[in-house]
Amino acid sequence: MEKYQFATIAALVLLTVTVPASATPVSPNGITLYEDYRTWQVVAPSYREDKNHIRVILGNPIAYKAMKNKVQPMPDGAVLAKVAWTVKKHPKFPVATEPDAFAQVEFMVKDAQKYQSTGGWGFARFVGEKYEPYGKDAGFVGECFGCHTPVKDNDYLFTGFGAVP
Amino acid sequence: MEKYQFATIAALVLLTVTVPASATPVSPNGITLYEDYRTWQVVAPSYREDKNHIRVILGNPIAYKAMKNKVQPMPDGAVLAKVAWTVKKHPKFPVATEPDAFAQVEFMVKDAQKYQSTGGWGFARFVGEKYEPYGKDAGFVGECFGCHTPVKDNDYLFTGFGAVP
Repeated sequence: MEKYQFATIAALVLLTVTVPASATPVSPNGITLYEDYRTWQVVAPSYREDKNHIRVILGNPIAYKAMKNKVQPMPDGAVLAKVAWTVKKHPKFPVATEPDAFAQVEFMVKDAQKYQSTGGWGFARFVGEKYEPYGKDAGFVGECFGCHTPVKDNDYLFTGFGAVP
Repeated sequence: MEKYQFATIAALVLLTVTVPASATPVSPNGITLYEDYRTWQVVAPSYREDKNHIRVILGNPIAYKAMKNKVQPMPDGAVLAKVAWTVKKHPKFPVATEPDAFAQVEFMVKDAQKYQSTGGWGFARFVGEKYEPYGKDAGFVGECFGCHTPVKDNDYLFTGFGAVP
């Protein structure tokens, strides 16, 4: 009987120890990586010549609907993901610039109350293959918000919806 | 009684006359515009500096799954859409290139039997706000297939899957 109890305790300890290794990354301001972002619908592509990044902005269902219908400010619960890859010129067709390696994913999370001091948006960035959270502490959002301030009149969003007929 | 019958016939005639105006565009080779393409999942973005186009390649569920799992040749029923917009530099952030106006959408439709002579792929392009079918007759596919021949070893596909960790 005691032997079984020991085995159970050992198993529980092992479980506790292994959880952190596979845990979802969390930004210093408490935003957790949205693991299903890759399946969200596309808002628009973009290309950053200064960073040599090609990107797609994806939206969760709330954000996608708001973008499509030009609803601003976006409702709480809207989340946008900006996925960036480094670029390469296609080896057989060099006028085409395409994704090479994954670079980072950034999120903008709408909660008008919670993120009141940064335009109602929470910001997060996860870098590289290990999704390392960007920023030493929660103060990193000053950098994000500063860059987005020039587009305050557009609900702090740069890229518009890639509309089709 | 006769008056009502006339009204019914007149309404039916009107219905028949208005249908073609709202019908879904069809390519000269018989491929109909996939009207729900805008909601498909993103395979990858791309940028064509020669055409000043920024693009996203989207996949229907069969194509998306095949791209993600690197299944080649793709199974029948796979359809890829390449959506292109003309570009603009963001007015407040000119190092970012973003969609301006819708330019065209192109489809590649997999049916190994039906499209045997063009690598198992049917090609179609719909141009501009009215989705005008490209090509004077079905021979236009020679142009598409010719351009895609250099990537025969990649199931005739240029752009790879924009993978994320």
